[in-house]
Amino acid sequence: MTEEIQQEKDPEIIDRLYESLHQDDVGVARESLEQLHPSEIADALEGLPAKEREMLWVLVPPEVEGDVISELQGSIRTELLEQMQPIEVVEVTKGLDTDDVADIIQELPDDVKDTVLLTMDEQRRQRLASVLSFPEDTAGGLMNIDIVSVRADVSLDVVIRYLRQLKNIPEQTDSLMVVDRENKYLGRLSLTNLLSNDPETSVGELMRESDGISAMTPANEVAKIFEQRDLVSAAVINDDNILLGRITVDDVVDVIQEEAEKSMKNMAGVGFDEMFAPVLTSARRRTIWLGINLATAFLAAWVIGQFEDTIEQLVALAILMPIVAGMGGIAGSQTLTIAIRGIATGQLGKTTSRALMLKEGLVGVLNGSVWAVVVTVIVVLWFKNWPLGLVIGAAMVINLIVAALAGAVIPLALKRFGIDPAIAGSVLLTTVTDVVGFVSFLGLATLLLLT
Amino acid sequence: MTEEIQQEKDPEIIDRLYESLHQDDVGVARESLEQLHPSEIADALEGLPAKEREMLWVLVPPEVEGDVISELQGSIRTELLEQMQPIEVVEVTKGLDTDDVADIIQELPDDVKDTVLLTMDEQRRQRLASVLSFPEDTAGGLMNIDIVSVRADVSLDVVIRYLRQLKNIPEQTDSLMVVDRENKYLGRLSLTNLLSNDPETSVGELMRESDGISAMTPANEVAKIFEQRDLVSAAVINDDNILLGRITVDDVVDVIQEEAEKSMKNMAGVGFDEMFAPVLTSARRRTIWLGINLATAFLAAWVIGQFEDTIEQLVALAILMPIVAGMGGIAGSQTLTIAIRGIATGQLGKTTSRALMLKEGLVGVLNGSVWAVVVTVIVVLWFKNWPLGLVIGAAMVINLIVAALAGAVIPLALKRFGIDPAIAGSVLLTTVTDVVGFVSFLGLATLLLLT
Repeated sequence: MTEEIQQEKDPEIIDRLYESLHQDDVGVARESLEQLHPSEIADALEGLPAKEREMLWVLVPPEVEGDVISELQGSIRTELLEQMQPIEVVEVTKGLDTDDVADIIQELPDDVKDTVLLTMDEQRRQRLASVLSFPEDTAGGLMNIDIVSVRADVSLDVVIRYLRQLKNIPEQTDSLMVVDRENKYLGRLSLTNLLSNDPETSVGELMRESDGISAMTPANEVAKIFEQRDLVSAAVINDDNILLGRITVDDVVDVIQEEAEKSMKNMAGVGFDEMFAPVLTSARRRTIWLGINLATAFLAAWVIGQFEDTIEQLVALAILMPIVAGMGGIAGSQTLTIAIRGIATGQLGKTTSRALMLKEGLVGVLNGSVWAVVVTVIVVLWFKNWPLGLVIGAAMVINLIVAALAGAVIPLALKRFGIDPAIAGSVLLTTVTDVVGFVSFLGLATLLLLT
Repeated sequence: MTEEIQQEKDPEIIDRLYESLHQDDVGVARESLEQLHPSEIADALEGLPAKEREMLWVLVPPEVEGDVISELQGSIRTELLEQMQPIEVVEVTKGLDTDDVADIIQELPDDVKDTVLLTMDEQRRQRLASVLSFPEDTAGGLMNIDIVSVRADVSLDVVIRYLRQLKNIPEQTDSLMVVDRENKYLGRLSLTNLLSNDPETSVGELMRESDGISAMTPANEVAKIFEQRDLVSAAVINDDNILLGRITVDDVVDVIQEEAEKSMKNMAGVGFDEMFAPVLTSARRRTIWLGINLATAFLAAWVIGQFEDTIEQLVALAILMPIVAGMGGIAGSQTLTIAIRGIATGQLGKTTSRALMLKEGLVGVLNGSVWAVVVTVIVVLWFKNWPLGLVIGAAMVINLIVAALAGAVIPLALKRFGIDPAIAGSVLLTTVTDVVGFVSFLGLATLLLLT
């Protein structure tokens, strides 16, 4: 029963693994592997190029394969699973929690899935079916079936004797679920309360009444509840308040990590791409985003094209116009990020959004004015042209205010239409800041400079 | 003992709060407030403009003030604390865990801090001093002092009797810490093991030997350990292996959330800005970022300026040049995001980075070629100018390959110099993609189109 938490883990361990695999030195690789926890092996598999990944997988000891697979994410897991026989999947998933098995099974092709389920024993199959009946990203899909439940009318003494008979209490059990005769959920009895009170007390006196989490609650909502209540585990119930299972904090931590990763990747338009996905897969996953941006870039080019004659007369405009557009993009994305975070944390509602627009608009006025002065001075010094300096300064103020408002409005509008603001927000925003930047600068120049 | 988990929490509750406060309807606000958990009140405070925030704070019942303050983040908390008398701070923090009190105390001015510490009772002061002696973002700064520790040679029966006498076992206790006579940490005994085994067994037989987490371990490292090991709590030790305290998963969840928030905000250059920070504060926090970007924008403008004569002869170049630069920026930031994630998760090392550059370079070649063809076709149709189409296509391929390489190299280089790649990465990247985009397009045009 030794569980090592290595403090000074060599940060270069993946490097060493990679080197040894690259040089076909299986002995060294096997040695490095032995120092790793299953979740670290999963990290290593995700962090290695395809060839080395396949070599490493062969070296993973069979007894930890299941744990490694359940820690893997995305297409790398799917790939490994696709290469396995149904019987291998059953072997590998033997020691795993129901929620982890359900996660894995959902990724199998339908025919393999059926074979795997048939190869399992009856009890496990039924438990799995219960988890599989809910979407993966709901409380039901996250839950574990192995719960210890007790009745409210028994004494603590009886509970303790019952637990001793049970022998195996599931991991991360911080409390027992209290149910009535019909398995309706009543509340929770924490192990600390069980241990620190008079054995004659009844469960009902000590239990913490609490609502369970409905099985259809979305995963990110579940994460919020855990975070706000500092929970270690929570009961999952159906519409009739029947106890179905429990969610443990380790699964919630994974949800939080995945959500954070998802927003970052979505904002950059890389979607579910992984570091060492095959070149063709990566290129395909990212190309749509490039295409969308190309379309908006041509829109901006068309706008510039409307001012062809103006630019022909004053080439300095061509030199300076990216400055106005670019600064708008930067300022807008600052507001956008704040608004997207506000929406994600539920702090940004309908009326507070009006207050946000006002505030961000004022920030735009302030920063727009400050940097407009700087830009004007530099441009006047560079081109010895006062009117040109004033025009770019004015265009800058206009674009920074528009950028601030657009940065607040766009994510709210997208959300209303049910689109993830992290995905589409930045492309829409830069379209606005580019177009407004070019129109305000070149437009003002046409009106004021060409006399 | 009722703990309500509201499933169908009205998402508009902050809106309603805001409306009622805005209309000075204190009754309705007080009512909405009663339905909220302390952490939700903290969310509301963070989500409200300054005036409404102050009104709301006055309405918060004194008995939950401490919990609300410990859930608040950043400058809003500092602001509220600055308005309080030392004795109020002592009152408010009375019911909180040591780690939460330490968090709060660290934000007070030195003289107030001393007064607060002096007003506390001796035991609490000593415990606090122990936590305060470590930086906030280390295991020592995160830890709690209220631990239950037992010796290895006693029987489970004795432990259970000891716990009954203790009455109050700290929250989120999933295991007891096992120590020797000198308080050196030996391992952990889980409550489930304590409950499901023969009372005559000794603690030593059942305990899980494990290394504690060293007090100076950085918070994000602690989070990784918890995530990988699915821990609920872990022991914190000093260099002599003496048990100092324990870290619980609820604090780790907060660390994970903050880390995720920080990378997102850093990438957008909004730093620690909050939604409703005062306008001047927000403007100041973001203005540096705008200034840095302005400097790089002028650098790009100077590069364009070198091709003034070329543009004068062919204005179409001015119209099209933002397309090449912009597409490079998008493609580069895709690679950048992948690399920053890889660095954060520890998957990207020295040798794997070479593999990443190769892979990303190939993705750049592929996507560059695909979209170069599209751009060429559109430009030829638009300007009826074959050579111009070929020049922009070639520039696009060049810039997308450079963007991919820069997106991988820049964060790795920044990391080597100890700079957070999330902060400086994107500004450096777009400088590279702008400059290379303009030089390659305008340079090729100068060489090939002007005969």
